[in-house]
Order: sequence, then structure tokens, then C-alpha cells
Amino acid sequence: MARKATFYHAGCPVCADAETAFANALDPKEFDVEVVHLGEDKSRLREAEEAGVKSVPAFVIDGRAYHINFGAELAALK
Amino acid sequence: MARKATFYHAGCPVCADAETAFANALDPKEFDVEVVHLGEDKSRLREAEEAGVKSVPAFVIDGRAYHINFGAELAALK
Repeated sequence: MARKATFYHAGCPVCADAETAFANALDPKEFDVEVVHLGEDKSRLREAEEAGVKSVPAFVIDGRAYHINFGAELAALK
Repeated sequence: MARKATFYHAGCPVCADAETAFANALDPKEFDVEVVHLGEDKSRLREAEEAGVKSVPAFVIDGRAYHINFGAELAALK
């Protein structure tokens, strides 16, 4: 079964670059990738925070948060 | 042709976790992944810095550096 990978972003240039480099690069046989725009879908902020996401862009894979470079603090999106 | 992705790490727990999550997760049809241990192979530090790597773990894909979470400053490896 494919593992779930969630990519959280906020539409910033750093996010878009990371999305191109990673979200589209994960092995599609292994991962089911969901892309979530936290600037537009604020209802997902809570789940992102609960998974340990502090800034975007970030991935959550197997329940762990991986921050990639630095786009924006989650606090700025509330 | 496969794109080159270089994963720089220093054997730290944060690095090992990122390697499991990402270095082994990139689509093998698209990427030729090289894993470089900068703590053991200091001769690669210069190329990593030139690509913009400031800390490990980090990927360099298409010449751009992507830092994942935070393991160690490159300066600590010199």
C-alpha cells in the first residue's frame, strides 16, 4: 500500500520550488502525495501543527514533519 | 536521463531519519541519488558549500540546495 506523504505550502516561491523538486519527485509506486495550500485552506493548519509542522514548505511522512528550507512561519498564515 | 540528486549528511540521527524518508523515496526512474557523508569525506565539503549547503541533512537537486530540518552546521564538520 502506498504511504501517505502530505506537502504543506503557502504558495510562496520557496514552497513552489520545493514542490517541484520534491512533491513531484517521490516514487509514485511508494507514495500517495497530497498537496495542501495552508494559506487557502486554513482548516488544515491544526493537523499540520499537530504533526509538528512549524513552517512551510514541509512534508509530513509517516507522521513526522520535515521542514524544507524556509518559506513562512505557520503563525503568519493564521 | 536520470537527474542527479546528492544527499549530504553527517551521520546524525536527524540525517538518518531524513535519508530514510527522502533519499530512498525519490523516484528511481527520475533520480540518480548519491549519498555523501560529509563527516567522513571532508573533501566534498567545498562542493557542498558551493551549491549553497549550510547545514546537513540537505539535498542538492539541479544545482539547488534544499535543507531538511536541522542536524549540524557545516562549520562543525571542518
